[in-house]
Amino acid sequence: MIFVLKPGVPQGRIELFQQMIESRGFKTFLNTGTEHTVVCLIGNTAVIDLDSVVQNNEIVEYGRRVTEPYKAVNRTIHPEDTMVNVNGITIGEGMFQVIAGPCSVESEEQIIAVARSVKASGATMLRGGAFKPRTSPYAFMGLHEDGLRLLLKAKKETGLPVVTEIMNQTQLPLFEEIDVIQVGARNMQNFDLLTEVGRFNKPVLLKRGLANTLEELLMSAEYILSAGNSQVILCERGIRTFETATRNTLDLSAIPLLKQKSHLPVIVDPSHAAGLRSLVAPLARAAVAAGADGLMIETHNDPARALCDGAQSLDLVQFCDLMEDIKCRIAFEGKQIEVV
Amino acid sequence: MIFVLKPGVPQGRIELFQQMIESRGFKTFLNTGTEHTVVCLIGNTAVIDLDSVVQNNEIVEYGRRVTEPYKAVNRTIHPEDTMVNVNGITIGEGMFQVIAGPCSVESEEQIIAVARSVKASGATMLRGGAFKPRTSPYAFMGLHEDGLRLLLKAKKETGLPVVTEIMNQTQLPLFEEIDVIQVGARNMQNFDLLTEVGRFNKPVLLKRGLANTLEELLMSAEYILSAGNSQVILCERGIRTFETATRNTLDLSAIPLLKQKSHLPVIVDPSHAAGLRSLVAPLARAAVAAGADGLMIETHNDPARALCDGAQSLDLVQFCDLMEDIKCRIAFEGKQIEVV
Amino acid sequence: MIFVLKPGVPQGRIELFQQMIESRGFKTFLNTGTEHTVVCLIGNTAVIDLDSVVQNNEIVEYGRRVTEPYKAVNRTIHPEDTMVNVNGITIGEGMFQVIAGPCSVESEEQIIAVARSVKASGATMLRGGAFKPRTSPYAFMGLHEDGLRLLLKAKKETGLPVVTEIMNQTQLPLFEEIDVIQVGARNMQNFDLLTEVGRFNKPVLLKRGLANTLEELLMSAEYILSAGNSQVILCERGIRTFETATRNTLDLSAIPLLKQKSHLPVIVDPSHAAGLRSLVAPLARAAVAAGADGLMIETHNDPARALCDGAQSLDLVQFCDLMEDIKCRIAFEGKQIEVV
Amino acid sequence: MIFVLKPGVPQGRIELFQQMIESRGFKTFLNTGTEHTVVCLIGNTAVIDLDSVVQNNEIVEYGRRVTEPYKAVNRTIHPEDTMVNVNGITIGEGMFQVIAGPCSVESEEQIIAVARSVKASGATMLRGGAFKPRTSPYAFMGLHEDGLRLLLKAKKETGLPVVTEIMNQTQLPLFEEIDVIQVGARNMQNFDLLTEVGRFNKPVLLKRGLANTLEELLMSAEYILSAGNSQVILCERGIRTFETATRNTLDLSAIPLLKQKSHLPVIVDPSHAAGLRSLVAPLARAAVAAGADGLMIETHNDPARALCDGAQSLDLVQFCDLMEDIKCRIAFEGKQIEVV
Repeated sequence: MIFVLKPGVPQGRIELFQQMIESRGFKTFLNTGTEHTVVCLIGNTAVIDLDSVVQNNEIVEYGRRVTEPYKAVNRTIHPEDTMVNVNGITIGEGMFQVIAGPCSVESEEQIIAVARSVKASGATMLRGGAFKPRTSPYAFMGLHEDGLRLLLKAKKETGLPVVTEIMNQTQLPLFEEIDVIQVGARNMQNFDLLTEVGRFNKPVLLKRGLANTLEELLMSAEYILSAGNSQVILCERGIRTFETATRNTLDLSAIPLLKQKSHLPVIVDPSHAAGLRSLVAPLARAAVAAGADGLMIETHNDPARALCDGAQSLDLVQFCDLMEDIKCRIAFEGKQIEVV
Repeated sequence: MIFVLKPGVPQGRIELFQQMIESRGFKTFLNTGTEHTVVCLIGNTAVIDLDSVVQNNEIVEYGRRVTEPYKAVNRTIHPEDTMVNVNGITIGEGMFQVIAGPCSVESEEQIIAVARSVKASGATMLRGGAFKPRTSPYAFMGLHEDGLRLLLKAKKETGLPVVTEIMNQTQLPLFEEIDVIQVGARNMQNFDLLTEVGRFNKPVLLKRGLANTLEELLMSAEYILSAGNSQVILCERGIRTFETATRNTLDLSAIPLLKQKSHLPVIVDPSHAAGLRSLVAPLARAAVAAGADGLMIETHNDPARALCDGAQSLDLVQFCDLMEDIKCRIAFEGKQIEVV
Repeated sequence: MIFVLKPGVPQGRIELFQQMIESRGFKTFLNTGTEHTVVCLIGNTAVIDLDSVVQNNEIVEYGRRVTEPYKAVNRTIHPEDTMVNVNGITIGEGMFQVIAGPCSVESEEQIIAVARSVKASGATMLRGGAFKPRTSPYAFMGLHEDGLRLLLKAKKETGLPVVTEIMNQTQLPLFEEIDVIQVGARNMQNFDLLTEVGRFNKPVLLKRGLANTLEELLMSAEYILSAGNSQVILCERGIRTFETATRNTLDLSAIPLLKQKSHLPVIVDPSHAAGLRSLVAPLARAAVAAGADGLMIETHNDPARALCDGAQSLDLVQFCDLMEDIKCRIAFEGKQIEVV
Repeated sequence: MIFVLKPGVPQGRIELFQQMIESRGFKTFLNTGTEHTVVCLIGNTAVIDLDSVVQNNEIVEYGRRVTEPYKAVNRTIHPEDTMVNVNGITIGEGMFQVIAGPCSVESEEQIIAVARSVKASGATMLRGGAFKPRTSPYAFMGLHEDGLRLLLKAKKETGLPVVTEIMNQTQLPLFEEIDVIQVGARNMQNFDLLTEVGRFNKPVLLKRGLANTLEELLMSAEYILSAGNSQVILCERGIRTFETATRNTLDLSAIPLLKQKSHLPVIVDPSHAAGLRSLVAPLARAAVAAGADGLMIETHNDPARALCDGAQSLDLVQFCDLMEDIKCRIAFEGKQIEVV
C-alpha cells in the first residue's frame, strides 16, 4: 500500500503521519521526489481501510493498494490451476464438467427420471434444489430434507455426484452426503456461511452475486479458502444491469479475468443468466469458447409444469441436443469431459 | 393475474390451457374480444411463476400480475401509516428519529463517549456494530458478544435504545436486550434470516440491498410481516450503479415510492450511500425534505482512527452541527423528534 | 395496444375513455370480462405515449403494447436474414467478416502497413478512425479529412473496403468513397444523424450505446431503415455496469436476442468492450460461438505508441494468431469468410 | 501524472521508459524508493492515454492522474461560483431559478397559456421543446421552426426567458433569439455539438447523460468552456440503473459533488428523472435541500392530452401548489428567486 502526499507538505507533518501508521503495526518507507513524497507501507495491509486514511489525513493526495487484497485464491501465489475433485470427477485444468438437473427436486419420479436422462445425454453431475431462495414468502421453497433425500436416491440410482444449494449454516449437518455445496448468488456475501462451509470438508460451488464485482467474488472465495477449504468452483451467472430483455446480463469476460487472477476453476450458468430457454444454447457455446471449465444447465422433464424457473429450463430432448453440440466443442477446445 | 392469448387460437387450445391452470387450484374466467382473448385467474397467484407460464404455453402472448405480489406490507390493504415503537420511542406518522453512532463498537470508552455526545446533540437512538460483514476475511469484524455487551452499557448510561446488525439467525438469542435488530444490505435476501427475525418479537431495521429493486425490498419485508412481526423500518442506503465518485448512488425516489406502496416507515442512511463525509449533510437534508421518517448517521469520536468506514463518519462536532440544522428542517416538515 | 381497466368502472366512464382514444384516430374494441374490461386499440399505436395514458386516466389499471414498436427491422415482418453488401463483400446469412485496424489513422505508413498485414492475416475490411469522439477536449481527435484520405489510400493499396466513424451529418459529403459509415456508441440516439445516414446510400455499422437496451438499438436502426436505407449492421460493444475490472461489460446475449427479433446482421467489438488486450481473444471466440456474423478488432502496428486506445489493441502478430484460431471456429460454425 | 514501477526494474529499463515519455514532450522526475520507483510527468498530461501506457510498458505497475483532467470548469482554478446571466436573470451564488413549461410546444394557445400560468405561479424561465429527440421514428418530434417561433411569442407575451433543446449544430442559426440552449442527455457526448455551442454566445443548459459519470459531465462542460463560452448550467436528470419503478434514478449526490469540483451552477430536473408525476414534488423539495441552484419542471395545461411525456407533467394547479411550497424552501435555504 502506498500513499502519495500532496506537494509541499512540511517534514514534521510527514513524520507524524508515519508515526500514526507505524503505531498500528506497519513499517513505512519514504520515497522523496521533486514533486510528491510517497509513503510505502509494509505489513498485512488488508486490515487497513484505505479510503479512511485518505479522507482523514489532509496531507494525503491519494492512496492505493499495490497488491491484491486476496492471497489464498491468487494465481501469483499459487500459479497452477486448482483441480476440484468431486467424488472422483475433476473440474479444472482441462477437465470440463456439465451439471444438469431441475431448479427444484419435486418428486422421486421426477428427479430420478431427469438424472437418468441427463446422464445418458452426457451430464456428469446432477443439480436439484431442496432449499430454494424465493423473492416471495408465498412461493414454493423446495422439499427441504425430503428434497435432499430424493437427490441422494437419484445419486444412488445413477452414480452422478450431486450439487445442491445451502441457505444457512445450520443446515450443514444435512449436507454430509452431498457432493458439492452450492452457495447461491444472494448468499455470496453471507460471510458467516462462507466461513462455515470453509470449515466443512466438501467442494463448494460459489455463485457470483447479482451486484458483485469479480474482486468481491474472489474475496468471498478467500473466506472459504482461508477457513481451510481449497475446493472451490467459481460460477458466473449473470449480473444485474439496466437491460430488461434478459433476466440478467451474462458477463463472459469473467471467465478469462478470473482465470488470470486466480487458480480456481470457473463454470457458467447460462440458464439463470438469461432467464429465457432460447438463449441457453448460444450462451453455453460461448462459455465453452471463452474458456469455462464447466456448465450448469437447468433441465426439467416437463418445464411447462415446473414449480419454479420453468421459463429457462431445457426439456430432456433439448438438453440432449445441446450436449451433442457441446461435446464437440469441448473436444475442439482440447478439453475432456468425464464419462460417469 | 391475466394472460393475453395470441390472435386466432382455436377454442380447444384455450380450453386445454384453462384446464391446466384450474388443475393447479385456480378459477379462470375468459374475456373474449375481437382481437385477443384474455384469461383471468383468481386465487393465490403469488405461487405462480408467470414467466414460466408464458414461455411454456405457445398460445400465450404475455401475462401480467394485476395485483402486487405483497400483501401484509401493502398500503392498499393497511392504509394507515405503521408506527414502530422502539422502547417507547416511535418512528413513523410524523415522528422522526435520528440513529447515530459508530460503524463498530470499539471499546467501552468509545461507545459511551459517542452515546453521550450524540444524545446531547439530539440523536434518539444509538447504533454500533458488534458483528461486522466485511468484504475481506482479514478485516476487523467487530467485537462480537463483547460489542453487544458494551452497547448495552451505553444504553444503560444514556437511556438511548440501541440498533445493531445481526449476521445470521444463530445469533438471535444474543439480541434479547437489543432494541432494534438491523438486517444489513447484504442480507436483504437471506430469506431464512428474515423468517427468523419475523418470529422474534423485536423491531427490525431492514436495509435495501445494493442491487435490489424496491419491490424486492417490500417482498423481503413481507417475509418478516408474514412470519408475525409487523414492526419493520425500511432503510434506503444507496444502490450500486456505474458512478464511481460515490460509493453507492442514494435513491431518494425510494422514500415517496415506498410510502405510496406501503405503510411502513422509511429512513435513510446517507453515510453508507455516499461513502464520503462531505456528502452526509446535504443528503441528510434532502432525505428530510423528501419525506423520510428518520436518518441513520455514522458518527465517531475519532474518525481518523476508526477501525472501519472512517471516511464516511462525522466527528462529534460535525454531527452536533448537522443536528442543529436537521432539527429545524424536521420542524419545517411538521414532524417531531423525541427528546430522550 | 391494450388497456386493462380497473374493476367496477361504470359504463359511462368506459365510453368517455373510448371516445377520447377514437378522437385521436384509432379504432377501439372492448373485451368485457367478469373481472376486468380490456380496451384494445387498432391503428398506428407507435405514436401513443402509453405511460401517459395510464397516468392520466384513473380508470386504467395498466396498458401494454402487444406488438413491438419497430417494424422495418422486425423479423416477423421480414423473416429472411438481411445480407449487407459492402463493395462486393457480404455480411450475414452465413458470411462472416472480420474488420480490423487501428483506433485512429495516424500516418500513411501506419495505415498502409496495418492494412497489408491484417489483410494477409485474413481480415476482410479495414477500420481506422479519422474523426474521434474523445471524452476530453484536450485529447487527440484524429486527422479528420487527412485521415479519410489516408484510409482511402490504404483501400486502394489493398482492396480492403473501409469502415470509419462519422460524428455529425455535416461530414456526410466526405464519406462518398467510404464503404461503411460507422455510427458510434455515443451517437446511437443522435436521431438527426440516424435520419441523415438513412438517406445516404451506404451500409451503416450501428454500435449499441453504453446505456441502451436492445429495443432502443433496434429503434435506432428503425430510424435508418425508415429513412430508406436497409443496409444496417448492428454491433454489440459492451454496456456500462458497476463492474470496474473491464471498461464495459460485453453482453453476448445480444447476439441471439437481436437475431431472434430482427433480420439484421450482428457483429461484436470485443476490443472496446473489454478495454484490455488479454480479453480480446477469448471474447472474440465466444462471439463466434454465440452466433455473431462478424468481429471488429482493434489492431495496431505499435500499440505502445498508439495515439489512442493502445491498451486494448492487438499488435499485428497477436492479430495474425487470433485470425488463425478464429478461421477454424468460423468453419466449425458452418460459416464462410471472404478472401479479399 | 505518475507511474509506479514494479519492484526490481533495472536502471536501463527505467531510462528507456523516461526517454520514451520525454520524446513525447514531457519532463519526467524520478522518486527512487526502497520498494518502488515512481516516475512523475510534468506537462499537459491530458493528451496521454494512461491505460495505454500501463498496458504497453511491462515495467509499470500502475499509473494515476494526480490532477483532474478538467481545467476551465475546475473549482481549484476558479474558486468563486459562476453566475450565469440569462437575459437579466441570474442563476448561481444564491440566486435560485425555476424553469417550467411543457415537454413540447404544441400550439400558440397552449404555450402562451402555460407561460402566463407558470409566470403567475413564480417560474422565472419558460421551457418548451421544438426539436424533440424520440426513441421511435414514428413518435411526435416537435413543431421544429414553428415551435421556436411560438416559444418566442410566449416570451414576448410574458417576458420569461426561454430554454429549448438543440439537436444538432446545423440548427444553431435558429437559436439566435433563444435565451438558453439546452443540450439534452442523449447529446451530452456529442462532442461536435458541444464545441459549436461553445463558440455560440448563449448560456447553455447541459444535461447529464443517462449513463455518464459526473467526471464525464464536467469534461463535456469543459468542451464548451474551452471553446470560449463560460455560461454553462449543469443539470442532473437521473441515471439509468436496474430499478424499474422509476424511469431513471435521480442522483442527488451529484449536486454537492459537482459544486465541490466545479464553480458552475447545478439544477435538477425531477420530471424526467422520475417519469411519474407523484414523485416530482418530493424530489423537487429534496433537490432544494441538497443545494441545487434551480429546478426544471415539466408543466402542461392538459397533461392527459400532452403529445409527449404527459405521465410526468404537472398540471397548472399542481405546479402552482408546488411553487408555493418551494418558494418557502428557497427562502429557508437563504436563497432568492427572481420576480420576472
